[in-house]
Amino acid sequence: MEALETLTGRYGDEGDKLLFRVLNNGDLLAEVDDKILQDKDSNAILPYIAKRGLRYDLTVPFARYIVMNRHAIKLPFKRSAIQPVWRADRPQRGRYQEFYQCDADIAGSDSLYSEAELVKLYDEVFRRLNLPVVIRINSRKILQGIIQSCGMGERFSEVAIIIDKLDKISDEKGKELLVAKGFDPNEVNRLFELIHNTQLDSLKTTGVNALTQDGISDLETICSLCQSTGLTNQLIFDPSLARGLSYYTGAIFEVTALDANMGSIGGGGRYDNLTDSFGMPDIPGVGISFGAERIYDLMEEKNLFPPEVIKKSGVLILCMDAIAMETGFNLTSSLRNNHISTELYPEPGKVNKMMSYANDNGYSHVIIIGSDEVASGLFTVKNMHSGIQQKLTSDELLSQLV
Amino acid sequence: MEALETLTGRYGDEGDKLLFRVLNNGDLLAEVDDKILQDKDSNAILPYIAKRGLRYDLTVPFARYIVMNRHAIKLPFKRSAIQPVWRADRPQRGRYQEFYQCDADIAGSDSLYSEAELVKLYDEVFRRLNLPVVIRINSRKILQGIIQSCGMGERFSEVAIIIDKLDKISDEKGKELLVAKGFDPNEVNRLFELIHNTQLDSLKTTGVNALTQDGISDLETICSLCQSTGLTNQLIFDPSLARGLSYYTGAIFEVTALDANMGSIGGGGRYDNLTDSFGMPDIPGVGISFGAERIYDLMEEKNLFPPEVIKKSGVLILCMDAIAMETGFNLTSSLRNNHISTELYPEPGKVNKMMSYANDNGYSHVIIIGSDEVASGLFTVKNMHSGIQQKLTSDELLSQLV
Repeated sequence: MEALETLTGRYGDEGDKLLFRVLNNGDLLAEVDDKILQDKDSNAILPYIAKRGLRYDLTVPFARYIVMNRHAIKLPFKRSAIQPVWRADRPQRGRYQEFYQCDADIAGSDSLYSEAELVKLYDEVFRRLNLPVVIRINSRKILQGIIQSCGMGERFSEVAIIIDKLDKISDEKGKELLVAKGFDPNEVNRLFELIHNTQLDSLKTTGVNALTQDGISDLETICSLCQSTGLTNQLIFDPSLARGLSYYTGAIFEVTALDANMGSIGGGGRYDNLTDSFGMPDIPGVGISFGAERIYDLMEEKNLFPPEVIKKSGVLILCMDAIAMETGFNLTSSLRNNHISTELYPEPGKVNKMMSYANDNGYSHVIIIGSDEVASGLFTVKNMHSGIQQKLTSDELLSQLV
Repeated sequence: MEALETLTGRYGDEGDKLLFRVLNNGDLLAEVDDKILQDKDSNAILPYIAKRGLRYDLTVPFARYIVMNRHAIKLPFKRSAIQPVWRADRPQRGRYQEFYQCDADIAGSDSLYSEAELVKLYDEVFRRLNLPVVIRINSRKILQGIIQSCGMGERFSEVAIIIDKLDKISDEKGKELLVAKGFDPNEVNRLFELIHNTQLDSLKTTGVNALTQDGISDLETICSLCQSTGLTNQLIFDPSLARGLSYYTGAIFEVTALDANMGSIGGGGRYDNLTDSFGMPDIPGVGISFGAERIYDLMEEKNLFPPEVIKKSGVLILCMDAIAMETGFNLTSSLRNNHISTELYPEPGKVNKMMSYANDNGYSHVIIIGSDEVASGLFTVKNMHSGIQQKLTSDELLSQLV
């Protein structure tokens, strides 16, 4: 939870609508103005009945944290965090109302080395996950410069919101929406030409304006740093990349998996003014986020989870009767003390039923204990992969299974 | 979030009061009865404006999960989970409105081996954390049997709530409260004698009733199983242990740290009827919970975090100028590729300032790069523990730092 005043107004109008509010406890309506209740004014009642909300992302809470702990934190400050966030969106494939974000942020430096490091982090993580991606990069400076140069600078966020949707709506539709908002069709056409110019060099020569040139120079630095150390995945400049959130000021990133139908699985950017609104100016920041559920869903679809992650391995101990259970409990304990992942089927039962449980759960070995085993101290061990069955003492067990 | 109908009524009256409700989105007041608004009836309005709540614990959502996934789950089913929970309690030392619980549960078996395994899990975790604890154990059967035998069985939960508070209020006060509720002072005295009888053997011979005897027999089995494999921490029978939550049916546990002023840092028990209320009877369950923040706070107070957890280790690269930064960025990349934890100070700066940053953050090695180093390919490496400074090639660096 965060105070609603921390959350409200940081994510644009659309973000505000998607915030989940937490109801105050106690006598909710006592202090509410009678007129609000009479009018059934659902907006006006909100400040009376909810003072807290659920996190919408991890970046704004991070800025709030820095400001609250300004005296304890040494800048530059790096943090990583994995936490749930909530958005009152309509649930659909890849879109959840409650989901986990994994964030990495660097606060307290405006060095472009931070951006380069975060691009490399994206690259390395998806390399290790075996999930090929495209990392798209743009700069709010470029986007803002282009929009300004088309005479739309006064209404930047209206224009940016439409550009942000171009992966879902057609260019034609996007142009229509802008013209309907009263923009000059020629300027709109020029805007679309510029934002589809995906070559830094060629955009540079169009001589747009100083702000755009500044953004281009940033991206040249970031890209050349990343390329100098080698990237596994593609890093692509895309001047039509807008990002929905309102707090970005410099480079912005968005990651999409190749050959997948799953929107972005990561995004981020530079937010140099975010702590200002909490009363602490001049703390530049930049960060990226991974969408845990979407990455999980994709890895499941593409069978990228290694077998040892999906299936349990280790040993399952099955006991035939109550006496055997005691032996099994002690054996479980000594196998675990020797760092052998071991489970005890918690009650005696029929071998067939218990063996099918062992199969379903992918145990690598099953130890069966009956009265013979208790008497002889020799345990029957079955390797579930090879099917081979052996009789072993507990010492032999330990040395074979470690 | 959970549907409020999943949460309400599962934690006793006190629990219901401590639930956080999440406000519905959209036009909140449209459907609310005019009379409720006129009367400012804060209770009656709740069902209209909030249909979801925040998790109060992880056990009830686990039961809901089992019922929803009954066809996919193979019983017995074990799960562990680490997730935030929320309670609208007054915040104080060790009591947070948002905190993390770490739970381990076994569903689908009524075997007492499950209880024994969970006690051993408590024991092993706190042994590894170096935090000596007392694990108190009781059974709801014993408590219920005792309360019945004192003629208070009809009002079990009222009595249990007062017993649950005896670690905070005196026995005198507890007796007063019960007498004030109309219970016979002689029976109240007998109740207190019985719940302070901490010897299983001697409680057994008081011949309370069959339910108590059944609970005693359970605990004898659990304790003897645990002792047979050895415990590091104390396992103590405490018939006055009640646990606040209403869903327990059998053994209950509570863990307290020795020499600490911090309430319980773990608790749990058997809940054999929890899925019933979701329409799926006969799924017995038992589970335990660790309170992450309280354990963290205690470990911090007692200096139990190993130094390598508190302090960063690894290498910090400091660069004198823009050219050195490029070299530093490449070196960071190659050290990381060799699994050496490495950070690059993100901008060139004054050595003194950057060295004090390195000191404050506990890096084990600092590499300083200036124009000399770029030209010669020899890097200045300072071991921050010994203070020894060397000039090394990047190959020598890799072999020394791995």
